[in-house]
Amino acid sequence: MILLKARLALELPPINRALARAVDTLPEPVRPVARHIFEAGGKRLRPLLTVLTARLLGYAAEDIYELAATMEMLHGATLLHDDVLDNALSRRGRPAAHTLFDVPTVILAGDALLAGANALVAGFGDPRLTRCFSEATSRTAAGEILEIASQGRVDLPAAEYQEVVRGKTAWLIRASCELGALRAGADAAAVAAAGAYGENLGMAFQLVDDALDFAPSSVTGKPTGGDVREGKLTPPLRLYRLSLNREERAAFDAAFSCGLMTEHDAEAIAGRIRDAAFDAQTRLDADAYLDAARAALDNLPHLPERDLMRQMADYVRDRKK
Amino acid sequence: MILLKARLALELPPINRALARAVDTLPEPVRPVARHIFEAGGKRLRPLLTVLTARLLGYAAEDIYELAATMEMLHGATLLHDDVLDNALSRRGRPAAHTLFDVPTVILAGDALLAGANALVAGFGDPRLTRCFSEATSRTAAGEILEIASQGRVDLPAAEYQEVVRGKTAWLIRASCELGALRAGADAAAVAAAGAYGENLGMAFQLVDDALDFAPSSVTGKPTGGDVREGKLTPPLRLYRLSLNREERAAFDAAFSCGLMTEHDAEAIAGRIRDAAFDAQTRLDADAYLDAARAALDNLPHLPERDLMRQMADYVRDRKK
Repeated sequence: MILLKARLALELPPINRALARAVDTLPEPVRPVARHIFEAGGKRLRPLLTVLTARLLGYAAEDIYELAATMEMLHGATLLHDDVLDNALSRRGRPAAHTLFDVPTVILAGDALLAGANALVAGFGDPRLTRCFSEATSRTAAGEILEIASQGRVDLPAAEYQEVVRGKTAWLIRASCELGALRAGADAAAVAAAGAYGENLGMAFQLVDDALDFAPSSVTGKPTGGDVREGKLTPPLRLYRLSLNREERAAFDAAFSCGLMTEHDAEAIAGRIRDAAFDAQTRLDADAYLDAARAALDNLPHLPERDLMRQMADYVRDRKK
Repeated sequence: MILLKARLALELPPINRALARAVDTLPEPVRPVARHIFEAGGKRLRPLLTVLTARLLGYAAEDIYELAATMEMLHGATLLHDDVLDNALSRRGRPAAHTLFDVPTVILAGDALLAGANALVAGFGDPRLTRCFSEATSRTAAGEILEIASQGRVDLPAAEYQEVVRGKTAWLIRASCELGALRAGADAAAVAAAGAYGENLGMAFQLVDDALDFAPSSVTGKPTGGDVREGKLTPPLRLYRLSLNREERAAFDAAFSCGLMTEHDAEAIAGRIRDAAFDAQTRLDADAYLDAARAALDNLPHLPERDLMRQMADYVRDRKK
């Protein structure tokens, strides 16, 4: 983990510089929104994966940071539109997520970030890169759409929730790895291995997130059980619901499907989920994906970057907030 | 014009079929939104230009309809997000534009359409096509952003408004022509000529639209003077404002910049604009762009499609609603 942190300290500045250059090419009125979302922090997980994968597969040029930045831009565009979506749903009792910018500016900033990333990738002149990028855009949008359509559904099949996660989270992390491999000119097997690593890492990342949603807010700094109030039947919540008796379940279903869960309800449910270790069970499910991610790494060259990518799997597993 | 209508009758069905196929690949929950926007009509001006330009430059294959559909998809994505933006601005006294779908679904449908179009273009595997498409996306977003930033500005320079139009309307029409030329494998001069035709046609299209905004609603079927209420200082309105005396202008500026213009104000202003022929003057400005569009056509092969593209310039000029 010390090695990962050292490499991070080395890679973050050029990633952030590439991102800042990209923001400077956006239309002036939306630059503050873009800066706001990028300067709010973020782990830069996606661009870092693009850089590490490219280096692992022998690519030495500096332009990898430009390519890597497009993944953070696509991620940022998603977050901005999510902000608006969440705001739109604030009628269901959630507080508004953003107060600094108005809705049109935020929507258009998302559009501009996506368009800018698209143009940056197109500038590389490699159809494989544009195909990978556009597939990531489509899959991510599809995942979010499926998620909205699934809200409040108590009968959401586990496999369908898995597809939500694959779309909204895992595909972009997969594409981040694939882009690096493609830019490095890797063969199909290596691109597939990098993609499999990323997809499984992404699935695990989201499941850990789902588990952390029920951790005490004193630990995470975020409200507990937000997913309950947002009508998301994540794995810990599915297990909780299955553990209820007929009467309790009917009450849960009524409140959940109508979006009537209060902060108080969510905290009570979170407590019971922790007591029954349903969140711990979800972390075990994440571990299975992480095993698959590590196995995919075995098909890639044995170089320092591979060890770092292995450490990233540990980081995803051990994340406490 | 009879020839144009005959050709339109021939080209519209395959364009609409390609569009329907593209919609079928979108995530299920947003398909109704996409169908709604495409089945509401629309002239299919943009895809038609892609097809005509490609045919004019010797491209015979059927896949041109797939490529052409991407331009209508990008246009549709813009309209959907505009819908939401307009709705967001309904606080300023405008009626909500859409009532059939909720905001998240509409935003995500726009994102999905853009992503789907992107993927279709990337599928052609030609970096020149993806560059052209991504540039059109960026420019269109930039134009809309500039337009929002310009709302209510009485001191908006004419040149700046021109850039709004070039972005929000003209660039996509330009790209529609360029895509056809690029797919036909045309040389740089022909691509530039096709692009110049499209850009000038697009500028004229918007100026005629700006003039028509002040036509009686009995003619257009739309409320008169919508641009006044939306704070858009279009050319007829700029001329009107310049014709006011100091006192009148101060009153106009106060109401316009605060978004306080009523339907009644807008109708009164429209009447004065028609009496002073400021709308007719704007149509003359459009004519200058149409002359430039026709001149650009002279650099392209003398074939039936070129005559049709000339007729499209006449259609844009003579449009009554």
